[in-house]
Amino acid sequence: MSVTAAQGFQAAGIAAGIKENGNPDLALVVNRGPRRAAAGVFTSNRVKAAPVLWSEQVLKGGRVSAVILNSGGANACTGPLGFQDTHATAEKTAEALGEGHSAGEIAVASTGLIGTRLPMDALLPGIDTAVTALSRHGGEKAAIAIKTTDSVHKTAVAEGEGFTVGGMAKGAGMLAPGLATMLVVLTTDADVDARDLDRALRAATRTTFDRVDSDGCMSTNDTVLLLASGASGVTPESGAFAEAVREVCADLARQLIGDAEGASKDIRIEVVGAASEDDAVEVGRSIARNNLLKCAIHGEDPNWGRVLSAIGTTSAVFEPDRLNVAINDVWVCKDGSVGEDRDLVDMRFREVRITADLAAGDASAVVWTNDLTADYVHENSAYSS
Amino acid sequence: MSVTAAQGFQAAGIAAGIKENGNPDLALVVNRGPRRAAAGVFTSNRVKAAPVLWSEQVLKGGRVSAVILNSGGANACTGPLGFQDTHATAEKTAEALGEGHSAGEIAVASTGLIGTRLPMDALLPGIDTAVTALSRHGGEKAAIAIKTTDSVHKTAVAEGEGFTVGGMAKGAGMLAPGLATMLVVLTTDADVDARDLDRALRAATRTTFDRVDSDGCMSTNDTVLLLASGASGVTPESGAFAEAVREVCADLARQLIGDAEGASKDIRIEVVGAASEDDAVEVGRSIARNNLLKCAIHGEDPNWGRVLSAIGTTSAVFEPDRLNVAINDVWVCKDGSVGEDRDLVDMRFREVRITADLAAGDASAVVWTNDLTADYVHENSAYSS
Repeated sequence: MSVTAAQGFQAAGIAAGIKENGNPDLALVVNRGPRRAAAGVFTSNRVKAAPVLWSEQVLKGGRVSAVILNSGGANACTGPLGFQDTHATAEKTAEALGEGHSAGEIAVASTGLIGTRLPMDALLPGIDTAVTALSRHGGEKAAIAIKTTDSVHKTAVAEGEGFTVGGMAKGAGMLAPGLATMLVVLTTDADVDARDLDRALRAATRTTFDRVDSDGCMSTNDTVLLLASGASGVTPESGAFAEAVREVCADLARQLIGDAEGASKDIRIEVVGAASEDDAVEVGRSIARNNLLKCAIHGEDPNWGRVLSAIGTTSAVFEPDRLNVAINDVWVCKDGSVGEDRDLVDMRFREVRITADLAAGDASAVVWTNDLTADYVHENSAYSS
Repeated sequence: MSVTAAQGFQAAGIAAGIKENGNPDLALVVNRGPRRAAAGVFTSNRVKAAPVLWSEQVLKGGRVSAVILNSGGANACTGPLGFQDTHATAEKTAEALGEGHSAGEIAVASTGLIGTRLPMDALLPGIDTAVTALSRHGGEKAAIAIKTTDSVHKTAVAEGEGFTVGGMAKGAGMLAPGLATMLVVLTTDADVDARDLDRALRAATRTTFDRVDSDGCMSTNDTVLLLASGASGVTPESGAFAEAVREVCADLARQLIGDAEGASKDIRIEVVGAASEDDAVEVGRSIARNNLLKCAIHGEDPNWGRVLSAIGTTSAVFEPDRLNVAINDVWVCKDGSVGEDRDLVDMRFREVRITADLAAGDASAVVWTNDLTADYVHENSAYSS
């Protein structure tokens, strides 16, 4: 499972003392080759953490030999000194890994509190420990070491014909499109070059991580990396490879929403009958970000008026008196007005399905979100993240 | 105070039985002239309630003789029958008021639950009762009758040279730009024509009601009306009149935020150093809608990282490493990085001031919001509105 499910990868997760509570906080993923192709997508937030700025540069070369990730500090909004810390982290990782590694091929990712410097006196020695702990079976430990407010670590794997795609993710809040707030490392032993990796990764994230929206808050640190070792010797047909990558991304994205801070309901919003996919996504996101609706779902109240209210704020093609809304398959709103009896809606289960029919075309999209709860408020008013 | 502070107006607020709990739910404001000029601004939500569709038509004529307002039901998403109910309400009001009134000059406003028909068998007889109760001192009662989840009724007044502007507002949640969710009726005895009323009203709402954002949720029923009786015989200089209207709007807008559902903090966000006012407003709204920041403020945590994170999602002109943020006048973020000691920030009081300096120009804007609390969640998960 995780990042070591595919051949050619080693990983480690250790406690370096970055987190004050002594929990694991440093993960290392190493690509042992023979190939070291890589692709990455990053937050579209214009305020980017130092490791994002660094890794974007690294990925331009299309080659990554290792990824070093820390929790316990985002290294965001830390100025030039913060960037130097990221640089030093990559340098130290290359040095500790030894021959064949250079800082320019080491991606760095960080997650945790914004606006504080990382404790480099703990982090740098931790890299030596992590290198010593590297193992063919280290994927789970690496996934555990990148947790922040996550209640569980998240891993996934998909098997293709002769190749494997695996991955790990962290994220529990500040999940919003472009991307959900997260660190994700995917690995594969397929023999695929950087350009094809990039294409498969962008296609996969566009309909998975980009379509989970926990709380509308876009992070400064989002990073999704895909590393290929080529160790299987198999070059899959591009469609099959893309599907395996998408499958792992969808699995991890679903796990992120399932672990969203304070959530008691996972909400699947499907927009159908849209004039275009862009319209469907815009409407889906607008519904996903409506605090009043998210509170209503928490209270198991099939409040379709709040769905219409959210749709009405978009620029999508629709006529108000042709809108239809179903909650858990009961069409409570028909033609923009009262539909089936809302008392027929059974909302006892964790998963809630909202279907919004714009009656304007054939395009559709699915966006995932979760409810808004007092626990979310408590968690995020007490914890500086 | 309220809508009867200006000469030439009568008002009433009564319990018609629209609300099941027997609270006041029907308000009537009548312009006794001699002039009946009027202007209005309405929600920019594309899903508009029947009374909004009706009143938009009425206001096109620039004349309003009376406004009939109900709480206890929004008459939104109620289809053609809901529109007929609004029409019948205007007809009945014209008939009850008698000579000199016609339905085409009666504005209608409704607030409450979306997606249910109004109990016309209670509402229509209530109109007769309201007409009987009309009084030169009825402004307070009218303001009370339009409350939904409001904890207090809201009124304001400004005195100009020889003229008065007064008003009432309701709103406690679903407050978001374009406009905040609200019903507002303003009255003046100034002798001003419909065109000048419109100009003054649009200028005033643009920097007041349009800049309060309680929960990012835009309503289907927002209505702000300004009625002029001309009873003072005074035609004020247009700047002085506009300022009086703005003053009343600002007062009411501040009261709306002060009564936002579940809020424990009122947050004044001032964006300075912007390249344009549009940039300043975009950044202000982005900060105002950041759930994580709103939770942090609730927890009295001066979490400036979440402010930067919100700024980073906008298209405003700025460089990340030149951003400055003050919370209650302590510049906790300088040049995009750690500034003064966050422990210096005193957040014990209800009002919290966030200043975001984009260091990109001279434009500025103020946007008001409130914190996100467990009480907000409870109120909106238990109550269908």
